[in-house]
Amino acid sequence: MIELKDIREAAERLKVVLADTPFAYGPFLSQMCGMSVFLKKENLQIIGSFKLRGAFNRVATLSQRDRERGVITASAGNHAQGVAFAARYFGIKSFIAMPDATPLLKVNATRDMGAKVLLHGLNYDEAYLYAENYCREHDLSFIHPFADDGVIAGQGTLALEMLAAAPDLDAILVPVGGGGLISGIAVGAKAINPKIKIIGINASGANSARNSFIAKKPVNSASVRTIADGIAVRDCSPLTLEYILKYVDEMIEVDDEEIASAILFLIEKQKLVVEGAGAVGVAALMHKKSGLKQKSKVGVILSGGNIDVTMLSVIIEKGLVKASRKMNLVVTLIDKPGSLQKLSASLSSAKANIVQIDYDRTAISLDYGDAYVSVSLETKGAEHQEEIRSRLKEDNFIFSEA
Amino acid sequence: MIELKDIREAAERLKVVLADTPFAYGPFLSQMCGMSVFLKKENLQIIGSFKLRGAFNRVATLSQRDRERGVITASAGNHAQGVAFAARYFGIKSFIAMPDATPLLKVNATRDMGAKVLLHGLNYDEAYLYAENYCREHDLSFIHPFADDGVIAGQGTLALEMLAAAPDLDAILVPVGGGGLISGIAVGAKAINPKIKIIGINASGANSARNSFIAKKPVNSASVRTIADGIAVRDCSPLTLEYILKYVDEMIEVDDEEIASAILFLIEKQKLVVEGAGAVGVAALMHKKSGLKQKSKVGVILSGGNIDVTMLSVIIEKGLVKASRKMNLVVTLIDKPGSLQKLSASLSSAKANIVQIDYDRTAISLDYGDAYVSVSLETKGAEHQEEIRSRLKEDNFIFSEA
Repeated sequence: MIELKDIREAAERLKVVLADTPFAYGPFLSQMCGMSVFLKKENLQIIGSFKLRGAFNRVATLSQRDRERGVITASAGNHAQGVAFAARYFGIKSFIAMPDATPLLKVNATRDMGAKVLLHGLNYDEAYLYAENYCREHDLSFIHPFADDGVIAGQGTLALEMLAAAPDLDAILVPVGGGGLISGIAVGAKAINPKIKIIGINASGANSARNSFIAKKPVNSASVRTIADGIAVRDCSPLTLEYILKYVDEMIEVDDEEIASAILFLIEKQKLVVEGAGAVGVAALMHKKSGLKQKSKVGVILSGGNIDVTMLSVIIEKGLVKASRKMNLVVTLIDKPGSLQKLSASLSSAKANIVQIDYDRTAISLDYGDAYVSVSLETKGAEHQEEIRSRLKEDNFIFSEA
Repeated sequence: MIELKDIREAAERLKVVLADTPFAYGPFLSQMCGMSVFLKKENLQIIGSFKLRGAFNRVATLSQRDRERGVITASAGNHAQGVAFAARYFGIKSFIAMPDATPLLKVNATRDMGAKVLLHGLNYDEAYLYAENYCREHDLSFIHPFADDGVIAGQGTLALEMLAAAPDLDAILVPVGGGGLISGIAVGAKAINPKIKIIGINASGANSARNSFIAKKPVNSASVRTIADGIAVRDCSPLTLEYILKYVDEMIEVDDEEIASAILFLIEKQKLVVEGAGAVGVAALMHKKSGLKQKSKVGVILSGGNIDVTMLSVIIEKGLVKASRKMNLVVTLIDKPGSLQKLSASLSSAKANIVQIDYDRTAISLDYGDAYVSVSLETKGAEHQEEIRSRLKEDNFIFSEA
């Protein structure tokens, strides 16, 4: 197992590449949960995530002989970028195995960093097996995404930065997938301040780490499903579980709804783009899951920002509907001239801003002569939506909400 | 006119409230334009914009007598938040005039900071006049958003921070609306480094500052229209024009398309939410409008992050279509069982992921028996879209692009 000294050495190695990411007070979140919350904005790290730390530290410690042969890993995400970046920095050949169906954008982002991408297999497991075989055949060094002490020491450097800025933190909230990040954080933070609480957060759809923590032995999942793809890890690693059982105080979980609302909160209130895995800490605080006392001083790691913008746009849309800032209505109209005009007059008098409208008079459930109008409205909150409903009822419209 | 000393004094006053926003290297943008680009992430400032600086400095210098009476301004945007925040800090009453139709969210955000919001008038001009009258009647202090030396000195503190971190900057790109920010920046930066170029950027839809700079006298606009609402200022201020004519080297402009693509770039590559006004500098660099030499070392001010998430979602959608990552097709189908199945088989064999589908057989331009199917597809780039088109043609589908 690593010690504080290993993390300090990693920090020295990382100096040449790391961006100095902010660890800043979050006023809205602090007010919302009655604590002092500080956000470690690791989504602003080079490559958009903390994964650079572990990968770079591991690659930096390779022997000259190993460097000449090259490195390999299996990952379609942030770890791939970290390994590719580190290998390019040291002039080492790198190979990254990804499943066949990996989006071209991710493939290209990794290729752009100089790595050779090996597309193989139907899923991550198959790509991983392929990478292991390829590694043996070509005598490369395998850089595991989390079950590796060099990687763990690199991730732990985050704890040094947070505690240097705020030595009196009561707790740190850490996203947990394979457990590399929390292992490093826990070793580093507890060595500096033994009283600090380390709280790990799983996505409910990928909670093998939490289940293993409770069972005190590795419990693998049958499958994983979460919008937090960065921590969607199926199997528990015996190595990181050892660290977790020794150092971690608590393991909690948050579901996709909670994660999505945290992503939207971070966009609106903190002006930050954070991926699902990076938002679990904020999700836990927003939904009162941390179990921490009022007035606690808490550090939250926003571990990365690599989220697909299409997903972002879906999260925004759903979030607006949930927060009563958007409203989707289906109104039954008598299909004759002027009825659409009457509807829009009614909506306009309720100060509802129409953003989309669809007209359908072929639906089977309609009387002949009637039509359905689907309207999307921008609204100002639950109260405003109530006003709109009342107005439509007063004006004798029949409608339902979609 | 203010001098460096005024800005240094403002920096002292601001110490107690300012967040230490990053001024960080932007690797993607630097590579894209062959320069060394550093981003001042003022969207991460408390209240989400630099406007806190000017408003706080101005309010901090009020006499005890003025503090007892209170302050007023007209603004529905970042300046409103700045004034409300500063007034609350000093325990001063504040009044903010906004047009009647201001979105409730903005009204509430300002009320939440303890200000009294005065809703009055059909537009900003009417709200402004109302505020002026209210100010006289109640003997308040008017905190102008830009035409005020105290405000200008506060905004100038940004230049001190940027030059302290990078004294050898060749140029600073500054968003320009009313001109308060660029006036302060120009005084501060040129006093420290007289060789530095100060380049102002207007939105094309609100370019009275640029027109005035060229004409060397105030030129007002008939109207303004831009997605960069933070710099949508109609009239040129004689005070800030004096600073601009004395200190600013160049004034350029970018249009809404360019601003939108910069917003999307900042989300995807920098993981930052930046409003239209804050993205004009990046837009200028991305679209080769800065006129700066290769290898220049450039500071770009990301002035704020207060953008409506609905607008964000529109920008993402349009941006994806433009970047060939989304494709909207209208396919004419023979309206009989199995034809939709044939279409989806064809699209699936071209690895096109369907994200939305609409079916319409009532359009007037159709032959009886046919139907239009509108399909939105997630695609991997221009090449992939070409493959999809070829496949559909091979399979004898008739289609157009929406």
